[in-house]
Amino acid sequence: MARPIITLTTDYGTNDHFVGAMKGVILNVNPEATVVDLTHGVIAHDILDGALAIGRTYKYYPPRTIHVVVVDPGVGTQRRPILVAGDTHYFVAPDNGVLSVIFDQSETLHAWHITSEHYFLHPVSNTFHGRDIFAPVAGWLSKSWQTASFGEEITDYVRFSIPKPKAQGTAVKGVVLRVDHFGNLITNVTPEDVPALVAADGKVTIRAGNAEIRKVCSTFAEGAPGEPIGIVGSSGYLEISVNKGSAAKTLGAARGSEVTVEVGASG
Amino acid sequence: MARPIITLTTDYGTNDHFVGAMKGVILNVNPEATVVDLTHGVIAHDILDGALAIGRTYKYYPPRTIHVVVVDPGVGTQRRPILVAGDTHYFVAPDNGVLSVIFDQSETLHAWHITSEHYFLHPVSNTFHGRDIFAPVAGWLSKSWQTASFGEEITDYVRFSIPKPKAQGTAVKGVVLRVDHFGNLITNVTPEDVPALVAADGKVTIRAGNAEIRKVCSTFAEGAPGEPIGIVGSSGYLEISVNKGSAAKTLGAARGSEVTVEVGASG
Amino acid sequence: MARPIITLTTDYGTNDHFVGAMKGVILNVNPEATVVDLTHGVIAHDILDGALAIGRTYKYYPPRTIHVVVVDPGVGTQRRPILVAGDTHYFVAPDNGVLSVIFDQSETLHAWHITSEHYFLHPVSNTFHGRDIFAPVAGWLSKSWQTASFGEEITDYVRFSIPKPKAQGTAVKGVVLRVDHFGNLITNVTPEDVPALVAADGKVTIRAGNAEIRKVCSTFAEGAPGEPIGIVGSSGYLEISVNKGSAAKTLGAARGSEVTVEVGASG
Repeated sequence: MARPIITLTTDYGTNDHFVGAMKGVILNVNPEATVVDLTHGVIAHDILDGALAIGRTYKYYPPRTIHVVVVDPGVGTQRRPILVAGDTHYFVAPDNGVLSVIFDQSETLHAWHITSEHYFLHPVSNTFHGRDIFAPVAGWLSKSWQTASFGEEITDYVRFSIPKPKAQGTAVKGVVLRVDHFGNLITNVTPEDVPALVAADGKVTIRAGNAEIRKVCSTFAEGAPGEPIGIVGSSGYLEISVNKGSAAKTLGAARGSEVTVEVGASG
Repeated sequence: MARPIITLTTDYGTNDHFVGAMKGVILNVNPEATVVDLTHGVIAHDILDGALAIGRTYKYYPPRTIHVVVVDPGVGTQRRPILVAGDTHYFVAPDNGVLSVIFDQSETLHAWHITSEHYFLHPVSNTFHGRDIFAPVAGWLSKSWQTASFGEEITDYVRFSIPKPKAQGTAVKGVVLRVDHFGNLITNVTPEDVPALVAADGKVTIRAGNAEIRKVCSTFAEGAPGEPIGIVGSSGYLEISVNKGSAAKTLGAARGSEVTVEVGASG
Repeated sequence: MARPIITLTTDYGTNDHFVGAMKGVILNVNPEATVVDLTHGVIAHDILDGALAIGRTYKYYPPRTIHVVVVDPGVGTQRRPILVAGDTHYFVAPDNGVLSVIFDQSETLHAWHITSEHYFLHPVSNTFHGRDIFAPVAGWLSKSWQTASFGEEITDYVRFSIPKPKAQGTAVKGVVLRVDHFGNLITNVTPEDVPALVAADGKVTIRAGNAEIRKVCSTFAEGAPGEPIGIVGSSGYLEISVNKGSAAKTLGAARGSEVTVEVGASG
């Protein structure tokens, strides 16, 4: 049988001992597990950013992968630790909405409130449940696969809506969800919201930061150096990019910046 | 038998080829090893920071884990490479004190001066013993487990004391040992030094940077937004935190900043 | 048989979901593969920097390792995806010269234009071939080892020359190829270009940024604090270093800065 795969998605960064401690706990429970860093670059305390990070990635992993997702500003408070079985993957996370995209994309869904403290690392700290609860639970799950042994099944888990763009007159108004490593502005606007983005004869005007963009390309390289362009990116969202440059710097835009897309050139 | 686990703790960062080269050398010696990044974010050339990083993490790993610890400003000089067997773990490191916390926490302890050059990668450079000495030694150890084959046993390894807080009148005076990814200030003060930090009716006044703090919480979320609080963190040390913010920025404090804790409110 | 090893070298950074998605795709194709981060810190869009990163590291890995190298400013355009078999390693990369150092260092060399689309992840995006082409091809190669099944063999792959230093009167004029994590300036000058760098009685004057350096050491620690020195580094190139400091900051130099080495002291 293949070795179990456990992925880690956190806002811990990699400069401290946090991630190293979690990996140790997992391997101590199950030395046969393959532990994979999905990313530790979720914006600190930003549950929406964490929800998007795991939501964009989990489905590329094999069935039965266990995804540990720790963005947990409420660590140590009454918020519950949960275990979730989606269509073909498992998730271990705080019950604060960080699995909202998973909930949106799963047809079958079971969730358990993790209460079986004998699985935890004792003494359980109030500030590092990644090490003391989520990591050992993932380790034990990868050995037993007995989801029901971790606590009572629940249905009232926390779930929020990913912000959707809104129609505003002839325009659609969205937002920058993330600035990636290259400075691309990832928006929440999709071709479903604005079909002209992918239509052969589509004409749109995109406004973001200090720029007004009429060019929608299918590759980064179609942009002239320094020229901001629109592009439907690899996760299906409109991105604003600058060929070999940073759109964030060029446009003066950031996470949360408003983006409007108007169909038809405006003049 | 389980696959051997080799962890890496360095000040190399991850942007260069250094860590990738070390992993290659290990896997070339023993393709069955599981190589785990503990952290590469130790402050450059900072042996104390390296000692704390490995000291806070090694014990979460399974018995027989081999920890490679390379913070090595004296690389290529007369400082010795050593192999250490603590209670249940192995360590490969330069003999500069970077294993001091391990020495403090181990009941049984053996150390060897690594001199068996046939284990090294040749030609041995003067500037990258992580690749040429420490990585291959860890790889070979994970195959043979013959510690005595690497050189003569020694007892005069370098060991320094982790700075302890000092009593000063009615106060205890400590220091910020590290600023973590979230901006929390990790101090060297423990509840052993100041029992009032964890007493039910304990009253303390903490001074650090520009702040005077009287609130000691058990979770980050108890702090109001922007309010600095004290908290005994997951490694047992007093931390100064700001809920969803950076205590380092809020207080204007950094690694090495002085922290005083006075028992009883001062006014 | 040993588990196949697949390494990743990219300019993606680690803060986004890109690397996590690639790992998932590989493990979904071949859960037995060991996926290793070589580095994701190649300078964005910088093909030369990527060529140097993989060129400095691949040879430390075991025979049959598959190296995925993605620095790909032309993603989605007509540039070809290629599979390369060097002396003992495999490489999967865009055909943009990022494997130039591999081509220089291999005695036997075969390359294939990857066209067998049934290996790809569909729909293939125009902006993320790391996930949709290079990762699955590496995964399938690690199962079948059938290089010829991926497309037609080619010989006209893109290859550029790593910039070499030039003689200029009595001096050799080179360039800073990279600033490493410690602030060391890695140049393209080797002892082959300037034998005096390693000669017992060699005298040289190195000029870079605002400094004129006459001291060539064999270890970092030989430099006085704050003093810039020359040193032949672990990859065989002249580096300019400051003991426990950053040569880049001290000299005001960066990637691309000119470096001249003159034999004999100039005054």
